[in-house]
Amino acid sequence: MRVLGIDPGLTRCGIAVVEGSIGRPLRLIAADAIRTTPDTDLPQRLLGIERGIEDWLDKYEPEAAAVERVFAQHNLSTVMGTAQASGLALVCAARRGLPVVTHTPSEAKAAITGNGRADKAQVGTMVARILGLDGPPKPADAADAVALAICNIWRGGAQSRVARAQQDFARKVELARRARGR
Amino acid sequence: MRVLGIDPGLTRCGIAVVEGSIGRPLRLIAADAIRTTPDTDLPQRLLGIERGIEDWLDKYEPEAAAVERVFAQHNLSTVMGTAQASGLALVCAARRGLPVVTHTPSEAKAAITGNGRADKAQVGTMVARILGLDGPPKPADAADAVALAICNIWRGGAQSRVARAQQDFARKVELARRARGR
Repeated sequence: MRVLGIDPGLTRCGIAVVEGSIGRPLRLIAADAIRTTPDTDLPQRLLGIERGIEDWLDKYEPEAAAVERVFAQHNLSTVMGTAQASGLALVCAARRGLPVVTHTPSEAKAAITGNGRADKAQVGTMVARILGLDGPPKPADAADAVALAICNIWRGGAQSRVARAQQDFARKVELARRARGR
Repeated sequence: MRVLGIDPGLTRCGIAVVEGSIGRPLRLIAADAIRTTPDTDLPQRLLGIERGIEDWLDKYEPEAAAVERVFAQHNLSTVMGTAQASGLALVCAARRGLPVVTHTPSEAKAAITGNGRADKAQVGTMVARILGLDGPPKPADAADAVALAICNIWRGGAQSRVARAQQDFARKVELARRARGR
């Protein structure tokens, strides 16, 4: 199973692809951050994020996607951009009929380190150990995206199967909608 | 000038098209709300919003778009969905190369009623009066979207010209990117 992980952000959107399944070694396919600069206007920045995600979907053809769930309580100055980037990530995956789920930061941390309050360094260390890397993926946003993908593979089955069933249903509704000539 | 106004929301996303220019009578082309139900999962809801906006862009071919600016301070329980819907609205417009600007709720209210703190009823009444309608467009989200489109036409020129210049620049960058074979 090949999973795309996305740690949404406007300035740096972490993105990663991990391959594997529960109980077998995982392999890091790619990890990076999509960047946009604050001197560009918001619509163009969001468009840049969308294009970046689309490029990754085209290139790595993941079978599922995991996106970090964003909370309004977090850093107020960046939360709106983060929410907008997360919405785009969800839509990009849903548009292709991929099952897409959200994980909270603590779910991802707990899956990787056993501790939902682990710090970034600990997550990075464990990500590197799990994937057999020399060091944590960089930048930190990329490592967080990797952790989300791993979390998704390990929490695996159940959640993705529900999401996939919902996708199948939505696809049938869409086909029916098109058949009606809309 | 034909302007698309969007009052972003996940359950009801107000959307409207108004035609006209500064100093001339304005005409309401259409106003409604795109709806999604809370029992659908988030990615599918966002996809529904995106498709709805795309349908309007296809059907009415506006030359510019105005989207309400969302603030993190607002209703915490709905702000994330609203932010995600607004991001989609910005991207849908930007993807087609339309100049797109955001207006705060007070900017729209002040443009329509002269008072940035006007209530919904007052905005609805003035929208109906400006457009020569028998009553305010319904639901209220549709009326808010109309107000945004009117605000955009009246604040008009300057802001849209800047946005258009940015779009032209972005398009050239994109063409250069494609020419490089990415």
